[in-house]
Amino acid sequence: MSDIDQKNTRNRVDTVQKCLEDIKLILEDHQYESGFIRDQGISEPDISGDVKRVESLSNLRDKLDEMHPADIAAMLEQLPLDERLIVWKFIPSELDGDVLLEVSDAVRETLIADMDAQELVAATEQLDADEIADLAPNLPEEVIADVFSSLPEEERLQLSAALSYPEDTVGSLMDFEMVTVREDVTLDVVLRYLRRLERLPSNTDKLFVVDRREVLKGVLSVNDLIVSSPETRVNDVMLTGIVSFYPDRDAESAAHAFERYDLVSAPVVDAHNRIVGRVTITDIVDYIREDAEQESLGKVGLRDEDLFSSVWKSAKNRWLWLAVNLGTAFFASRVIGMFEDSIEKLVALAALMPIVAAIAGNSGNQTVALIVRALAFEEINKSNAKGLLRKELAIAVVNGILWGSVAGAFAWLLYGSIALGLVMLGAMLLNLIVGAGVGMLVPLFLQKMGRDPAIGSSVLLTFSTDSMGFLIFLGLATVFLV
Amino acid sequence: MSDIDQKNTRNRVDTVQKCLEDIKLILEDHQYESGFIRDQGISEPDISGDVKRVESLSNLRDKLDEMHPADIAAMLEQLPLDERLIVWKFIPSELDGDVLLEVSDAVRETLIADMDAQELVAATEQLDADEIADLAPNLPEEVIADVFSSLPEEERLQLSAALSYPEDTVGSLMDFEMVTVREDVTLDVVLRYLRRLERLPSNTDKLFVVDRREVLKGVLSVNDLIVSSPETRVNDVMLTGIVSFYPDRDAESAAHAFERYDLVSAPVVDAHNRIVGRVTITDIVDYIREDAEQESLGKVGLRDEDLFSSVWKSAKNRWLWLAVNLGTAFFASRVIGMFEDSIEKLVALAALMPIVAAIAGNSGNQTVALIVRALAFEEINKSNAKGLLRKELAIAVVNGILWGSVAGAFAWLLYGSIALGLVMLGAMLLNLIVGAGVGMLVPLFLQKMGRDPAIGSSVLLTFSTDSMGFLIFLGLATVFLV
Repeated sequence: MSDIDQKNTRNRVDTVQKCLEDIKLILEDHQYESGFIRDQGISEPDISGDVKRVESLSNLRDKLDEMHPADIAAMLEQLPLDERLIVWKFIPSELDGDVLLEVSDAVRETLIADMDAQELVAATEQLDADEIADLAPNLPEEVIADVFSSLPEEERLQLSAALSYPEDTVGSLMDFEMVTVREDVTLDVVLRYLRRLERLPSNTDKLFVVDRREVLKGVLSVNDLIVSSPETRVNDVMLTGIVSFYPDRDAESAAHAFERYDLVSAPVVDAHNRIVGRVTITDIVDYIREDAEQESLGKVGLRDEDLFSSVWKSAKNRWLWLAVNLGTAFFASRVIGMFEDSIEKLVALAALMPIVAAIAGNSGNQTVALIVRALAFEEINKSNAKGLLRKELAIAVVNGILWGSVAGAFAWLLYGSIALGLVMLGAMLLNLIVGAGVGMLVPLFLQKMGRDPAIGSSVLLTFSTDSMGFLIFLGLATVFLV
Repeated sequence: MSDIDQKNTRNRVDTVQKCLEDIKLILEDHQYESGFIRDQGISEPDISGDVKRVESLSNLRDKLDEMHPADIAAMLEQLPLDERLIVWKFIPSELDGDVLLEVSDAVRETLIADMDAQELVAATEQLDADEIADLAPNLPEEVIADVFSSLPEEERLQLSAALSYPEDTVGSLMDFEMVTVREDVTLDVVLRYLRRLERLPSNTDKLFVVDRREVLKGVLSVNDLIVSSPETRVNDVMLTGIVSFYPDRDAESAAHAFERYDLVSAPVVDAHNRIVGRVTITDIVDYIREDAEQESLGKVGLRDEDLFSSVWKSAKNRWLWLAVNLGTAFFASRVIGMFEDSIEKLVALAALMPIVAAIAGNSGNQTVALIVRALAFEEINKSNAKGLLRKELAIAVVNGILWGSVAGAFAWLLYGSIALGLVMLGAMLLNLIVGAGVGMLVPLFLQKMGRDPAIGSSVLLTFSTDSMGFLIFLGLATVFLV
């Protein structure tokens, strides 16, 4: 992130809502007064007309001038598309790049679609190489080419590097703003060197100590730099056992390391231990949030969706998931279809069968949630996987007998047949075992296939517990009751 | 977190697995050789016997000596209870407190249950007041009382303060390790003051500038302290517009602020703007992770569960959820029971009805996921809620017509009845609308009730889409077909 002065940040969180309301009022004023904004579109230099209108639009500009780019981004997320684009036009152009970085993918698309190539190049050029790389997937190719050719040699190399790392690797989170020093100088020399820099990159809690071939020798914490006597040499206070990462390492493991060791920044090195960049807690926090968000949306088959996108676009975003689930529902329906004769003879089966399917689905989803979490924290390995499977199956047996008895008693009381109650108990027990086995094995299998076990496990589980639940219950009933 | 030297941290993430394997080998050796560990229990001073055994146990101690408390914690999470307790005995006692802080609640309980009051007091005393407060819910009351009376006056006040804030407030994340300076001194004076402290608290990226009544006047960033000339006065370089929090503010909003403004630390102030503590990114990251974890477990009705707890204990952890779901399943079953006559006459209804329920549940869960996320980011407000509801309903109509037609065609083809197909289409359409409405309103309602909308929305949704799905489909069929 480029450095924005911390101006007016006190209680800023509360004021986003306030600004949003003010801006909405200003916008409404205009539409009401003259239809000016909606009818004619807005282009900044054209603002003329009555004094009041000009005044309130300049109010809008003042408001935006005072706001932090992250707050502007938060506000844009909350505005319907037409109002969002009006406000976007009034945002000081030097903030365009920072705001684009802060908004969600879905909203970013709408803003970029509203800009011409020249504006995009201007907005992008001000950013650091790693930030340009973050925007790149949303930018037209000619814009990237233009920006690329406008960059100085060093940043061009950095941009190429940043673009080369796949999403969710350490390389994709990396920036290039590291400060390096040599080990054989005194802290006084280091301090004088830093004063010449005039400002330090954000999240600089440590300096990287390298030799002349850029090989990482250790780190000098800024705190040690401050509290140690200026005559001390760097290699007397630097730490040598340090957490570093390779750029092709997956981002999740870096996030775990930041969490475990309470890091603020960490060096990224190549195979020869030469420093190539750094990762900071800021990028890690963004990664953790985005990852959690993608997961909770991914579980229900959604990609990031702009709250205010069109009905048609949103509907399409939800199709794949509905189609997949309709497929599994059709399959389960055909399982029931196989037993239509039995149901005709004993219609109670129709009322009871969803219970068998549902409870095994719920129980299996508990297993999935625990296994997915354990996989994320790397708590499952070859030596304990078998024991865990045995444990989940044992829990299914305990719960199957308990809740199967409750459901069986319900069936018995309601339909006056002990045999029906026993079939219910048997089916619940067996289907809970199916749920536990599938709930344990599916996430492990997805993980092994290199897919995210948090996404997709649940569909496969429900598919199994529905189909098997109907098959087991109706099958047992057909054998013993009908 | 107390400060642990960064020793042997390079590639430490990989070595946890390695250490775990080594330790398992050492433990297995012993059990195989002599049954020593399992049979007699372990008490450190008692280790005697053959040379090889002593040697390998001292290997275990050496291994643990080298490890970071967070790595020891990660390893303990992966060990079955009996092995976990053996390793726990060998952990250097000066690390006990730090390890207890790092493990999950469920594992912490097992470790604390294995310690006597004296050991607990010794482990706890070494910690900072805010850390003691974090452990307090798991500690026996007499231990807390003992620790409390052993603390110096200042820390005692801090502990009382820390204990007084409810979970999920800024106060519960706060620590007391802030460094404060006066505004009328030069940076040179500040630097000399800091050198006398010998070390700065972790995550010190800024010093807090206060007047003599501890009222917060601004912050002095450590980076500015370093790059500015030593003759500069604090009030010439300090920032005055700063993000600060009240201790009773909810932690989620602080997490958003850290994310938005890329903070490493921030002051916590009382109503008179007097500084009472600080929050650091380390605690925020832990909070974000724990919050996400609680959410994904809470969605399936689980509290934190030790992977290796007993079958019985785990089974009980899952009961409440299964009982609630069994209740809703019984209810849905009775809805079907009302239409047994119709099903007897047209058994196809039994095979088709789960499709109507399932797809509306899936579609409604998509709405829930989007609304829950939007609520978390405070993107929903009075002015846009109505528009969003209209949009979700419109999407349900689009998808209802589309996927209802697919399902209707399936029914028609399979059972040769156009009327049955039309009933299917109508029921799907209506039930998707139910799903969208409930999926939108339930999270808003839970939020308004002060409950976490991420937890519980899904049960209520499935309850509605199941019961209403059966009612609508079988009702329409009874009116038009039977």
